[in-house]
Amino acid sequence: MGTTIGIGLLGLGTVGSGVAKILLSPQGRHPLVSEVHLARVAVRDLNRPRDVSIPTKLLTKDPKEVVDDPSVDVVVEVMGGIEPARTLIMRAIKAGKSVVTANKAVIARHGEEIATAANASGVYVLIEAAVGGGIPIIEPLKQSLGGNRIKRVSGIINGTTNYILSRMSKEGAKYKEVLNEAQDLGYAEADPAADVEGLDAADKIAILSGLAFGGSIDRTKIPTIGINNLQSIDVQYAKQLGYEVKLLATAEKLIQNNERLDSIPLALSVQPTLVPKDHPLAGVNGVNNAILVEGEPIGKVMFYGPGAGAGPTASAVVADILNIAGVNQLETSTTCLDPLLSANSWRNCHLVDRNVMIQRNYLRLNVVDSPGVIGRIGSLFGDRKVSIQSIVQFDASQEGAEIVVITHKVSLGQMNDSLEAIKHLKEVAGIASHLGCL
Amino acid sequence: MGTTIGIGLLGLGTVGSGVAKILLSPQGRHPLVSEVHLARVAVRDLNRPRDVSIPTKLLTKDPKEVVDDPSVDVVVEVMGGIEPARTLIMRAIKAGKSVVTANKAVIARHGEEIATAANASGVYVLIEAAVGGGIPIIEPLKQSLGGNRIKRVSGIINGTTNYILSRMSKEGAKYKEVLNEAQDLGYAEADPAADVEGLDAADKIAILSGLAFGGSIDRTKIPTIGINNLQSIDVQYAKQLGYEVKLLATAEKLIQNNERLDSIPLALSVQPTLVPKDHPLAGVNGVNNAILVEGEPIGKVMFYGPGAGAGPTASAVVADILNIAGVNQLETSTTCLDPLLSANSWRNCHLVDRNVMIQRNYLRLNVVDSPGVIGRIGSLFGDRKVSIQSIVQFDASQEGAEIVVITHKVSLGQMNDSLEAIKHLKEVAGIASHLGCL
Repeated sequence: MGTTIGIGLLGLGTVGSGVAKILLSPQGRHPLVSEVHLARVAVRDLNRPRDVSIPTKLLTKDPKEVVDDPSVDVVVEVMGGIEPARTLIMRAIKAGKSVVTANKAVIARHGEEIATAANASGVYVLIEAAVGGGIPIIEPLKQSLGGNRIKRVSGIINGTTNYILSRMSKEGAKYKEVLNEAQDLGYAEADPAADVEGLDAADKIAILSGLAFGGSIDRTKIPTIGINNLQSIDVQYAKQLGYEVKLLATAEKLIQNNERLDSIPLALSVQPTLVPKDHPLAGVNGVNNAILVEGEPIGKVMFYGPGAGAGPTASAVVADILNIAGVNQLETSTTCLDPLLSANSWRNCHLVDRNVMIQRNYLRLNVVDSPGVIGRIGSLFGDRKVSIQSIVQFDASQEGAEIVVITHKVSLGQMNDSLEAIKHLKEVAGIASHLGCL
Repeated sequence: MGTTIGIGLLGLGTVGSGVAKILLSPQGRHPLVSEVHLARVAVRDLNRPRDVSIPTKLLTKDPKEVVDDPSVDVVVEVMGGIEPARTLIMRAIKAGKSVVTANKAVIARHGEEIATAANASGVYVLIEAAVGGGIPIIEPLKQSLGGNRIKRVSGIINGTTNYILSRMSKEGAKYKEVLNEAQDLGYAEADPAADVEGLDAADKIAILSGLAFGGSIDRTKIPTIGINNLQSIDVQYAKQLGYEVKLLATAEKLIQNNERLDSIPLALSVQPTLVPKDHPLAGVNGVNNAILVEGEPIGKVMFYGPGAGAGPTASAVVADILNIAGVNQLETSTTCLDPLLSANSWRNCHLVDRNVMIQRNYLRLNVVDSPGVIGRIGSLFGDRKVSIQSIVQFDASQEGAEIVVITHKVSLGQMNDSLEAIKHLKEVAGIASHLGCL
């Protein structure tokens, strides 16, 4: 074991145990796995029974001991949460150790600080497991798509909400019911806010955009709408109109020419979105994730697979460990980094205001069922230059009817102006839903 | 340009021009693109008009001049065909130059010789563009999935046949008609044999298997059935039964435990295969490709995108160029290679005989329409321990009926024994089709 690379594991929960299992059973895997060994492991409780057997002398309750241990060459942070994860990552970097982390929350918020420190120390911070679970998406974005001008990255990048939406679509079930069952099954956490309010997806699209567009992203400025207020009736109407509702995270570069600008304008958002049934993202069900990348000259490529779970996430963590182990064999000078692995920012980006973003929209309006209502709504949109693709009336209840409108592409500013006016029509009792539409 | 990496391009057809266009317009792409320049280009005809403008002094008709030019650091082979491509690749390697190639035919047949020479010379031979066009699949297999024990790789890896099959499915059109139109549109070559007979897909699955399972593959032993004898009626029956017909290339490791064997048995095949409509590969249409990788602990991941075309293929070639440029910045000693990029064989593999391969089967039998026929066919399969999932009679023609059988998993040896017996039933006029079924 002497000359192999020592791994210090911070956390031995589901992902940490998954990583340990791979490293402890190298047979049949890439031979480089044999050149890596578990050197030290930080756990919360030394005496908890585990399904992976690790020599007791490797265990410690103090994560700093793992980071500082001279036999640890690479620190693998799989404890989650902002602190102490951030401090431990920075401590490892300052000690000249490369870091592998699955921590999207830390990277989305402190990625720039961490990258700057890593480059100064000549170490790598690799984050394949932070987005898309087992799906290779970070490496391909960094290493395989560099020849492209990326135009758009969009995807289903939260497994919990996709599981809930898939069941709502299939069974016509209500959000609350499915959430409760998902919690019982362990697919959703006791406090599901980060998932169902879209915050986890926003962390991840911030990370993907930073890599795709080459500039750091202000995580706090991403307009984020979760599925926690989604009505099952909208999922059903969407289906009848030929769509599936997905929690879509999207990032789009708003200039397509290549003039030199001080900063590249980007539109980022997370919101429930109608996806046409023949679109590759529409068939992504259950806890699976998929990320669609569009660029010039590649066109569209999609990466699909399990978005969470111990095994897939551990696979991604080990991929990063192997990448560091591979480069390690090149006997490089310590300050030199492979620019594709190290992933610096190389231009400035800024997020545009939600009002200037352009999208198709799905609207459900509660109306009084009267002969002229569709005409009046249509004219009102027309007056405001909002082009309509379809207006359909559903006879939902005893008291009134429901009208579902799908618009062509329009800025959200124009859309909101129109909605303000529509609210004041006497036939309109209320705007029940407003979702995005691909 | 002095210190940037010089690229020698062998071939300036569609892919070569695509590569040149990217290298000549670095703005908005990864900054590493600026650290690479076109140093020399071999073309067939110096005076042919082109849509990319390259200084005349860089052009030559002699590809050896490109390989030997001291200003060329990396040789990019996009001329296609076995010779002189193979000789030029070997010449570059011997001169200590890394090679990027899109040439699946050369790599599938001479990959081992080329890899051995590359390792001896301490250079890389990268082949992202050889499989799946623009889809990043080679790099992810080499760099992102190394922690896994890969069980199975399967996919739609020939765009021409997938285009033909998609149209046969959608329009009910006949193979010959669609092929002729595909030729007119430039989606199929004048001599379509390599595509429609499955040979191109066999080249590609040989390459993918070599990387996924870590051993070199005897390309000549892959059972290969193309779509050139596929009847449109089978595509229609498949649809009625809930399947799409795809030309599937599959590679499966036949031992799942991890005992040390001298050689790992693999089942490889290329054949038209029924794919259930809810399977992720069923929705892959037109010239798109998709590759599904199954392993432990990752589960299933799929890579989807444009399987051919100048832009996508050029994107993959440039990815490889950037990988070499990235590692190049590490000032390594010349004999050291990153083991994830260099991709050696690390164990022995062998292909098992087609008769021991296990699969589900789709059969179409021409029968005389008589009351007992389904029973007799069913019993005959039962006697030979072939378990049936469904038998459906279609009233196809005036003269007789057609029976479509879908079996559960069974060895092809057993299957063929049963078919031999069925042929001799007096009610059976003939076995019209035999396809695989997922």
